[in-house]
Formats: sequence, C-alpha cells, structure tokens
Amino acid sequence: MSKRKIEVCFSTTLFPLFTNDNAHVVVVDVLRSTSAICAAFANGAIEVIPVPSVEEAKKYKEKGFLVAAERDGEKLDFADFGNSPFNFTPETVGGKVLAYSTTNGTSAIIKASGLSVSIGSFLNLTAIAKWLNNQNEGDLIILCSGWKGKFCMEDSLFAGALCEILLTHPNFYTKCDSVNASLELWSLAKDNLTSFQEKIAQRHRLKKLGLDDVLEYCFTLDSTNVVPLFNRGVIQLIKMDSNTLI
Amino acid sequence: MSKRKIEVCFSTTLFPLFTNDNAHVVVVDVLRSTSAICAAFANGAIEVIPVPSVEEAKKYKEKGFLVAAERDGEKLDFADFGNSPFNFTPETVGGKVLAYSTTNGTSAIIKASGLSVSIGSFLNLTAIAKWLNNQNEGDLIILCSGWKGKFCMEDSLFAGALCEILLTHPNFYTKCDSVNASLELWSLAKDNLTSFQEKIAQRHRLKKLGLDDVLEYCFTLDSTNVVPLFNRGVIQLIKMDSNTLI
Repeated sequence: MSKRKIEVCFSTTLFPLFTNDNAHVVVVDVLRSTSAICAAFANGAIEVIPVPSVEEAKKYKEKGFLVAAERDGEKLDFADFGNSPFNFTPETVGGKVLAYSTTNGTSAIIKASGLSVSIGSFLNLTAIAKWLNNQNEGDLIILCSGWKGKFCMEDSLFAGALCEILLTHPNFYTKCDSVNASLELWSLAKDNLTSFQEKIAQRHRLKKLGLDDVLEYCFTLDSTNVVPLFNRGVIQLIKMDSNTLI
Repeated sequence: MSKRKIEVCFSTTLFPLFTNDNAHVVVVDVLRSTSAICAAFANGAIEVIPVPSVEEAKKYKEKGFLVAAERDGEKLDFADFGNSPFNFTPETVGGKVLAYSTTNGTSAIIKASGLSVSIGSFLNLTAIAKWLNNQNEGDLIILCSGWKGKFCMEDSLFAGALCEILLTHPNFYTKCDSVNASLELWSLAKDNLTSFQEKIAQRHRLKKLGLDDVLEYCFTLDSTNVVPLFNRGVIQLIKMDSNTLI
C-alpha cells in the first residue's frame, strides 16, 4: 500500500493549483456551513443540496424545497432560515431534503466536485478522521472554504486538528507547508479555544450581526459521528457506529 | 491621521483579491529572492531589474547585463549566477545593474507593480519596519511570494515578524486572519529558528539540491539597513543611517 499524502488548501482561490486526481477532498467551513450541514444530518436530514447562486436557491424555494440561504452571514429574505446550525433542528430538518446556499462553504463543496468529497467540521472531527483512515488508499486535500477566496483562521484550525489525528497513522505523510502551519496554529489554539477565537475575523463579523451565539457549538469537538459525502450534486450521510470510532 | 490597515497576502494567486489602491506592498521571498536582493544592495549593486520570464532574462544577458536567474532553485545555464545570496558579493555586484529572474520572488514583485512596492527579508527587517512606520500614512499589504502560487512557511514567518514590530505602533491595526496566523507562527518560531526550519518545505527542496547553505544567512535578522524600492520596472535603494533605525 502506497503512503497517502496530505495537503491543506487554504482557500478556494488556491484550489486549482492542487491538481491530484488521486485525492479525496474534505471541505470545511467551520463558521458556519459545514458545521450546519453536520448538524442537519445529526438531526435527521436525509439530503442536503448545495446551491451556488441566490437565484438557484430561490428556484428551489419555488419548487417547494426547504431552503437555507445566507450571504455575508445574513439570511436571504425568501429562505426558510439562514446559516446558523441552531436552525437545523430535528423539527425543521428531520426527514427532509434541504437546499443550501452560503457565502463560502457551499461554493467550496461545488468547486471540489469531480473528486471524492466529504464534509468536515469540529462536530464530526473524530468520525471523519476514522472514516478517512479506513479508506486505506488515496491522497487527501483538506479544502478550507476561507472568506471570500482568502485564508481564514477557523478552517485552518480544523485542518490542523484533522492532520494531527491522521498523521499519527503511519500510512499518512506530508510535505506541505500549509499542513505544517495548520498543525502549529492548532497546537496553539486547542487548549484555549475560547480565547483563541478572539483572533478570528469571522467571529467579529458574526458578533456585529448578533450571530456569534454559534461559536461554542461550532468549536465543540465530536458532538456527532455523521460523515456526510458529496456525490453527483447532493450530500448524503454515512453514519458510523460509535464503537467504530477512533 | 487615519489608522493604517495591515494585511498579509499568503501567495501571488491571492493577490488580485487584495484590492486597495491606498496600500503599499512589501514583497517577501525569504528563500531566496528578496534575501538575495537585499544582499545585492548591501554589497553595492546600484540597480536590480526583476525579469519575469527566462526568455527576457536571456535577452538581458545578450545585451551585456549581469544576469542572475534560476528556476526551481537551479541556476539557468546562460546566467552568470543563480539565486544564492552568496553570489551577490561586492566583487560581483558592486556598482553594477543586475537583471534578476527567479521562480517566485521576481514575479511577485512584478505582480505588485502599480502600487508602491518595497523589498523585505529578514536581512532588512528592522530597517524596512522603520521606513514603513516613517511613511505616516497608507495601508500595508505584505505579499508573500509563496511557492508556485501556494502558501509557504518562511514568507509567512517574515510577515509575522514585520507585523509584530509594526503593530506596536498605535497607527497600525489589523482585522486580517492572515496577519494573526503569521503572528502566531512567528511567535512559535522566533526563539528557535533553526529547529523550526525543519517545518519548511523549501528548506528540504534546497537541501536536495545542495543549496541549503543559505538558510542561516537568510534567517539572520538585521544584517543590513537597506530598503530597496521597486518603481517603474527597477529596484533601487533607499539607504538609512544606522542611527535612524528603530
């Protein structure tokens, strides 16, 4: 079995430079898309359709879908709700198909299509690490959604957390500076996540909008063991038994 | 006087997203372009012409210029020398105009043209910080040359070191996650630069080529007080008196 390379891509703008047909992509948008997607599946959603544009999201609404959509943190007027994982309760999403459009996260998912894609967040950190390790082959790119094409801190912290787990397994290796930087940042943040959040620009953007109530939730590790996979335009669930977790 | 915003751009690929006509750009390529440019001026070069392509570098050679040119670390066959700052001695560059073409650094300089541009490295860290602070107005973007369009560790460490100095001055501020990440990385690296270099991919690339003898030199702080500025296609010097340094 050949060793599996790990790379971190700090934003969607950089993703075209990561040319590796042999790679699986983990997409992350901690604040808040991929955290919300994990919450939706943890609470019984059966499918999430990532939708790139506002216009398409509106069309899904007209067709009768449940629609979650935001831009720059704020809910779009026609949508059923915005991007807060707190909206994705068993009552609202249980048994439902959800169309979902956000500033950064959903477009990152769509950019990665063509490769095998999973959805990561702190909520399902250990579960996704376990699942990735169980795949036994293929390289790995952790695609940070970033902020409007640029680097963001919170996604790189997740990348560091995931790399830290995976690199304990001898079949993974890295030569990637972005992996090393993510590991270093995570090493500084992991024991004081609350105070480290002061260094996250998106935390301050959300606070201004009164939407920062999700911070603690989005930085809570392993609240669920869902592993959502994106394939042929939709996100669906692989549910793992708790006894198969790392 | 309005407060001056600092941002860090982690690679040339991301630079088009940093739209700020009011900004000065500090270009850095620690290993090795901007370190070599600082060495050239410290050793008496009177002008450095950054040249984007191999073909253009060849034309400068044909015109009789002294030419330094490398790709992927290795000297191009027609060039007088490659990218090692050790080539840029008083004997080779003193009183000369030098045409210079490299894998990452010179193209970063050219991408920033149109804005006011200076050349930074650990060699002139304090001098450039002092000069930037003395400008009194305008925002600041630290443009990391990166590696083939991607993030690299060493340039972000320089960005962190420069931000650390500038943010002690009350007229600078930041809301940029890349600044915060650079500051954190620099805080981890600064007291053990030699061991931290193990985490730098370019160090290992240079080692493979037998070119890693420059590491200590490129990570030596403040060996010169030159401040090279890029303007109208050429890099020229502002020399600062040692008694005006921070």
